[in-house]
Parts: sequence; C-alpha cells; structure tokens
Amino acid sequence: MSDEVKRGLEGVVVAESELSHIDGDVGKLVYRGYTIEDLARGASYEEVLYLLWHGELPTRDELESFTEAMTEERAINDGVMATVRELAESDSNPMSALRTAVSMLATYDPDDAETDPEDREANLRKGRRITAKIPTILAAFARIRDGSDPVEPQTDLGHAANFLYMLNDEEPDDVTADVFDQALVLHADHGLNASTFSAMVTSSTLSDLHSAVTSAIGTLAGPLHGGANANVMRMLREIDDSDQDPVGWIDNALDEGRRVAGFGHRVYNVKDPRAKILGERSEDLGEAAGDTKWYEMSVAIEEYMQEQKGLAPNVDFYSATTYYQMGIPIDIFTPIFALSRVGGWVAHVLEQYEDNRLIRPRAKYVGNENMEFVPIDER
Amino acid sequence: MSDEVKRGLEGVVVAESELSHIDGDVGKLVYRGYTIEDLARGASYEEVLYLLWHGELPTRDELESFTEAMTEERAINDGVMATVRELAESDSNPMSALRTAVSMLATYDPDDAETDPEDREANLRKGRRITAKIPTILAAFARIRDGSDPVEPQTDLGHAANFLYMLNDEEPDDVTADVFDQALVLHADHGLNASTFSAMVTSSTLSDLHSAVTSAIGTLAGPLHGGANANVMRMLREIDDSDQDPVGWIDNALDEGRRVAGFGHRVYNVKDPRAKILGERSEDLGEAAGDTKWYEMSVAIEEYMQEQKGLAPNVDFYSATTYYQMGIPIDIFTPIFALSRVGGWVAHVLEQYEDNRLIRPRAKYVGNENMEFVPIDER
Repeated sequence: MSDEVKRGLEGVVVAESELSHIDGDVGKLVYRGYTIEDLARGASYEEVLYLLWHGELPTRDELESFTEAMTEERAINDGVMATVRELAESDSNPMSALRTAVSMLATYDPDDAETDPEDREANLRKGRRITAKIPTILAAFARIRDGSDPVEPQTDLGHAANFLYMLNDEEPDDVTADVFDQALVLHADHGLNASTFSAMVTSSTLSDLHSAVTSAIGTLAGPLHGGANANVMRMLREIDDSDQDPVGWIDNALDEGRRVAGFGHRVYNVKDPRAKILGERSEDLGEAAGDTKWYEMSVAIEEYMQEQKGLAPNVDFYSATTYYQMGIPIDIFTPIFALSRVGGWVAHVLEQYEDNRLIRPRAKYVGNENMEFVPIDER
Repeated sequence: MSDEVKRGLEGVVVAESELSHIDGDVGKLVYRGYTIEDLARGASYEEVLYLLWHGELPTRDELESFTEAMTEERAINDGVMATVRELAESDSNPMSALRTAVSMLATYDPDDAETDPEDREANLRKGRRITAKIPTILAAFARIRDGSDPVEPQTDLGHAANFLYMLNDEEPDDVTADVFDQALVLHADHGLNASTFSAMVTSSTLSDLHSAVTSAIGTLAGPLHGGANANVMRMLREIDDSDQDPVGWIDNALDEGRRVAGFGHRVYNVKDPRAKILGERSEDLGEAAGDTKWYEMSVAIEEYMQEQKGLAPNVDFYSATTYYQMGIPIDIFTPIFALSRVGGWVAHVLEQYEDNRLIRPRAKYVGNENMEFVPIDER
C-alpha cells in the first residue's frame, strides 16, 4: 500500500465502465461508442436514456413502450407537492429543494428502499420514475415561488418539451423544444464526474437508488460542478450591466485574480465538444429572437480566454446563454443539469450494483499522536 | 497515469486528515490522538464533538457555551415537522425520512446554501444546527408513526439523554443515558468510511454542508455500512425465534453461504476496539434488566465466528443488542448511527473545505467503440 496522497483522485481509475468515454486531448465524447455529435443531431433525450440504461439505441417500438412507461410516471403525489410548495414559499435554494423532493420520492416509490439493490428491473423502474418526476418537481417549484399554480404534465409531449410546457404553461416552439432536448442529450453523461462518483460511493454500500441520486444532486450543486452554468450567466449579465467591453471586463477580472466561470475542465485539454454544439444552438436562438448579443459576447470572451490563458470553454459556458435565451430563470440552470444528468447517475449506479465493491479509501493521518486524556475538571 | 483499476479505492490514500486514525492490525482507534477507550470512559458526546470540530478537548467553560449553542438549536420548524409527519404517516423507511428532513433543513438555516463554503464559522454554526436537530427529527418520526405526538426537546438534558427522552417521553435512567452517550462517542468518527467519504466528494464541488450531510446519510443507509447494525439484530431475533442453538444456526447459515452480519471490516484485522467496549456495556444493560440472553448469544456467536472463519466482530455486532436492550426499535438503529456520525461528517467536511480539491476520479472505458449511428426509423 502506497502512502502517496492522491488529491482529488486525479488520474485514479476507480472502476470500469461501458457508459461514456472522454478523450480530452482531441475533444471527443462518446456514450456507449456513439459520438456526442451524432447523438445530439439524431437522437432524443429519451433515446439516449434508453441507450445508457439498456445498452443500445431503441427501435421505434422499444422507444414507444419506454416513453410510455416514463410518461405515466410524471405526476408527483400530494405529499411531495406539499413539501415542494413549502420549499418554494420559503424561497428555498432550487438545488436544495430538488434534493429534498427527490429524496422524498423514495417513500412513495412502489419499489421501496428495502428492495434488493441487485434487482435490476426494480432499479430501472425507480430510475424511470425519478427521471420522469424531476421536471414536474422543478417546474412546480419555479411556478409556485412566482405565485403561480403548478401545471400538470402533458402526456403527448416529449420529456424536454413537457418540462418547458410545465414551466411556462405554454408549449414551446419547435426550435426551443429541439434545442432544449439537445441540451439534455449533451448533459446526460460524462464519465465519473463528481456527482456521478458520489452516486457510486453512496450505492457502493448497497444503499438505494434514491439515496444515490440525492447524493448526486447535492454534489452537482457546487460551483465547481453544476453550479458553474448559473455563474457563467451571472458573469455575462454583470458584464452587460457594466457597459464595458467584454474583453476589457475579462481582462480586469483576470488582473484581479477572479475566476472566469465556464473555462477549463479537469478532463479536456481542448474545447469541450458539447460547448461547440451548444455554441451553435445559442447562436440559433439569438438569431430566432433577433438579438445575438449574448452569443457575440460569449464568442469574444472565448477568443480572448483562448489567447490569454490558453483555456477553452466548457459545456457550462454555452449552456448558460442557451437557457437564458429560452427565458429560464438563472437559478434553474443547475437543476436543469440535474434533470438531464440523472440519466447518467442511474446508469452508473446500475453498473455499480452489477459488480459492487464498497468504495472506502483511506486518509493519511497527520494529527496528534498519543495524547494523554485529562478529565474535564482538570483541564 | 496508471490504468490500474483501484476497485473500491482499497488502500488508496485520498487526503490527509487530523481527525481519526485506525490501526487495524492492533485494533486501535484514536480521535485527534486520544484513544477511543479514554474518550468513551471520560468524555461526553458533546466533548467529542468539540474535540473533532475545534481540535482540542474543551475546558468546562468552553463546553458550556458550546453545549448551550447546540441546545438552543434543537427545535425544528413547522415546515420540517410537517414533512416529518407526512413521511411518518406514510410509513417511510426511517433513513429515507432522516435524509429528506436533513436535506430540508438547508432551506431554513440562517446560513443558507449560498454562504461561502470557506466561511468556517458559518459552517460550524450549520454543523451545530444539523447535529442538534437530528435527534428531534428522528424522535418525532418514530413517535408519529406509532400514533403518538412528538415531544419537545428538553434544554437541561445532554444530547444523548435528550434524544431518549424525546423518543420515549420519559427521562432515561442514568445507566441507559450513560451507555447511549458512550455509544455516540464510539460512533462519532472513523476515518474515511464510505459515508464520510461521500460527504467529502459532495463538498469537494464546494457544495454546502447540508448537501454533504444528506449524501452521507444516504450512504450510511446501505447494509454494507450503517445498515448492518439493524441486520445484526434481525439475525439475532431470527436465531432466537428459531429455538436453535445460536452456534448451530450460524453453522447452517455459513453452509448456505449467508452473510453473518456484524463480522469483518475492511480496516480491522483484529477485534474492533469499539466492539470490545460496547460488548461490555451490552452485558451491563442485560444484567441491569436481569436478562443477559442477547449478550450471551452474541458471545457464543463471536467465539464461533472467530474459530470457524477467523473473523472478529465489528462495532455493529454489539451496538445492535445495546440499542435493542434500551427498547429502541430496530429500524431506528441505523438513524442513531447517523445521529452520532454527523459529528465526523461535519469535521471531515470542514477539513475538506480548508484545502479543497475537486474529487473526480476516472473510469476505464470498456464499452463499445466507433459505433455507427443509425436513425431510429432505420433501426
């Protein structure tokens, strides 16, 4: 046993996985061997879920029964809705609210916490239910805190379009629905990112899938992970409000030692392939709305950061303006990341259960030794 | 970068820590250099919390102000209580309920989810609040599901005694209170066990303390971790109900390839020092009640397992009968583990924030390569 401290587990390989592969040197991402470009162009989020969970892309018939099974699980019960309402009215942080509501789903799941964790069919049912209910929780939360009533899910809309419908009480136009679906495809899995890894650590004790997904949501919330997309948009708005030239603003920020959100990634040494695709879609949305201001600002910053720091944008950099141009509130961006990534979390937990080993590393003890205990009255 | 797969991260050192150290070859456990035997004998759970969070054992004055600050945080608000009630009335798994309620606390914490995670004082306040409120949540949950009303916390009882009081609406006798306090001391920290590690993974994205503790509760729930103490008691009851000789029952179980709960530990090669102490206390409780049946059954099984399998009992093996003899419901044993271990979780998250590095390992990709995408209508 080596005593070398592997800080952040950087470069440590903890498991084998058939789910996704990142080649950070060439900017390539695949899910089960399919490139992210092909999937973003040709597959819906539901097809990608099926691919991740079942190992191959579905036929039309397989997709239909899969989608039907998911769609009928969209509603949340009164108990969960009451808690969502309480959280929304208490102005909860949206990620705290989502984490709490998803945790609460466990209690009402027909396959409960005591189901054998190695029962793959039960876990697939749980995974479908959690994935189907997250948009409903999130849309209800966002509407209630704005003083509106929640909107019931619609059964004849896809996963992406139905979320936007429940959020706005209005069906999205085709371009918006398509771009949002594509964004979900792009965020569905990404190797052993921190939230996925936390789901694996949780499930490695043979704890249940709801526990694992709850851990993952809490982990995603941090600004070094899912929280980054909201921080990108806050930064872009700050730049816009400042009336400064974006490049000048970034230059000042760098001088002041501020972190520029949306750049750099532990795994990519070149531009994140997801950022490429979302950048194009962000431009499409701007053009459709007749205002490409945010897109242009992003491109200017991207070029400057590349030139000055040699850093390429990551997926958060372009998902920010994509969601913002859809009218989604900034603090809902990170929950939307969860809404998509839950597909990967479930897939990795299924893999973990299939060949489980308790994940329990060690720390190097650097504390006091041989302390003599003194009773409190003699201290 | 090596491609060797470190399954379960066994033997991998992921961080430095000053908190606790386990010498598995001699069966030694220390918290900040003090042996677990000294602490169990001479320090209360509150003193141990202070030691873990502040680095040294408190003086009488320090302990008093610390205890006062914790005590005044015991109550939970109406929103959390309503959700606890709903979960109890829906017969939630107790760990699912605790995970949900602790997650929900974030929304009402005066230091909210957006507090700078590196603000140590804010995190200490949050840690005190979470730790103070867990017994209240748990006792309310256990009483409501039994059709009783929750009992308000009492300010003049210690952490351990107050929990038993709220659970039973009756102050515990001195021996019971003392043994329960000792059990909390013994479970407060234990290196980078899976739940603690999950809290670290979550906080490594600079997510908030409530997210980290929520992850840890979900991780603890699994039968390979905190869930084991309940499984030990279920096994002992099954043996008792079978009217078989315990050794004969175990022998059959081993022949059938069943796992005997409460034996073996990744870190100990000899008897867990906590099991030694709790074994004695389990005997004390049996003697006080005039029935040492459970203790004797445990000893017989311990001797046989040692002889047949060379496996020594872990902490769960004796915490089971300890809690059972106090009249605590079996499915509350694992939540009690959380009630204690939260002290360690908070301490490790504080350490993590002080010198943070995103915890993001890698997987070895063993899936399909270069798959040709076929549109759905051509599949």
